[in-house]
Amino acid sequence: MTTAVTTNEVTLAVSTVIFALGPEGLRIPLVRRIRQPFEGQWALPGGPIETREPLEAAAGRNLLETTNLRSTYLEQLYCFGDVDRAPGERVVSVVYWALVRSDEAELAVEGENVRWFSADDLPPLAFDHNVIVDYALWRLRTKMEYSQIAHAFLGETFTLAELRRVHEAVLGRPLDPANFRRQVEASDAIIATEQHITGGRHRPPRLYRYDTSVALTDNGPLNKKSEARRVVS
Amino acid sequence: MTTAVTTNEVTLAVSTVIFALGPEGLRIPLVRRIRQPFEGQWALPGGPIETREPLEAAAGRNLLETTNLRSTYLEQLYCFGDVDRAPGERVVSVVYWALVRSDEAELAVEGENVRWFSADDLPPLAFDHNVIVDYALWRLRTKMEYSQIAHAFLGETFTLAELRRVHEAVLGRPLDPANFRRQVEASDAIIATEQHITGGRHRPPRLYRYDTSVALTDNGPLNKKSEARRVVS
Repeated sequence: MTTAVTTNEVTLAVSTVIFALGPEGLRIPLVRRIRQPFEGQWALPGGPIETREPLEAAAGRNLLETTNLRSTYLEQLYCFGDVDRAPGERVVSVVYWALVRSDEAELAVEGENVRWFSADDLPPLAFDHNVIVDYALWRLRTKMEYSQIAHAFLGETFTLAELRRVHEAVLGRPLDPANFRRQVEASDAIIATEQHITGGRHRPPRLYRYDTSVALTDNGPLNKKSEARRVVS
Repeated sequence: MTTAVTTNEVTLAVSTVIFALGPEGLRIPLVRRIRQPFEGQWALPGGPIETREPLEAAAGRNLLETTNLRSTYLEQLYCFGDVDRAPGERVVSVVYWALVRSDEAELAVEGENVRWFSADDLPPLAFDHNVIVDYALWRLRTKMEYSQIAHAFLGETFTLAELRRVHEAVLGRPLDPANFRRQVEASDAIIATEQHITGGRHRPPRLYRYDTSVALTDNGPLNKKSEARRVVS
């Protein structure tokens, strides 16, 4: 695990786009590069893979080393391999994306070389990392519409207002509360519990939960393997 | 373009799953391995990438060299990087999938070391290629339900019966014609033309076409780049 992989002609790297929901919307942590190329510019956390390290474990390591966090949602996004994406060498990057809850993100520490940015308002990043983040944002927003991905930003149970705020923050636009309630109630994936928020309110809001029989990361036949890896990473 | 990439510790390869629709359902071409490991076993077409070759161009080359075909649909599927997927070395494979029409597939030549197999009834393949094909099949079947991917198997215009036969062949089960017609007519993606099949029939079937303003390979912000590459590959 300690020998960095360098190749004769192609370097294989893993990078990770980490999304967290803050009060002002989607945020991602970036790392300042301390060497050339792009010295001083911000970049996605990542680096060359180790010879005996599974790809997903490398992504988990990026996440842990950058933010001191582990993610419940870590999935392969895309492999970026443009010939000229790194100056002077061929670097192919397998990119993962991770989603962390806001209470988890609060545990993350910023430093001189690690800082959280608004995902929609990034500086010019090293390499093709702006393209990668744009693609990850597009995938996240597309996937919100047909999957349980919002779950990764929520606790075990949540109110409809909390769920709506996650959707609004990811989509970057307000949603009509009544329409949203109708959509959720028509969905099989979200289940009303008998619990309500405790407190002195006249009509305390009901708590909901996701149908956990459906996997959060749906990779069909790859799921089982992926689950096994998650324990390690 | 002629120097094969070998790396000190990790080999980066591209493999391609090629689906065609034949009269008996989905078929894929495989290549017999002529060297160790897995000598004599069938495998997906592929090999190490060239230092200056874009990943998608390598996949297009796999397709062309194996089948003498070019595909209108060529998309990245997943990057497979398990540490022990190849005996004695670390090989990370970026896998693409291609869809070809049956009239195109008829142009493909079989040889001693290239043969077409039923996608649902494969022999034990080299490496983890059975897992890769299972994943590609799952993705294809899932994607049929929410995208225009069936278009890749059809000509510019088609009858509802032709479209239904594509769905049936991919899903591997019969579909109710009346229900299928209702679903298609409710969809914005499929447009009725004023043309009908020519011939001596009393009520010649109407021809339909896809809404071509929607890209077949929908990778959001990556689409434009991908289209540009397609011309090259």
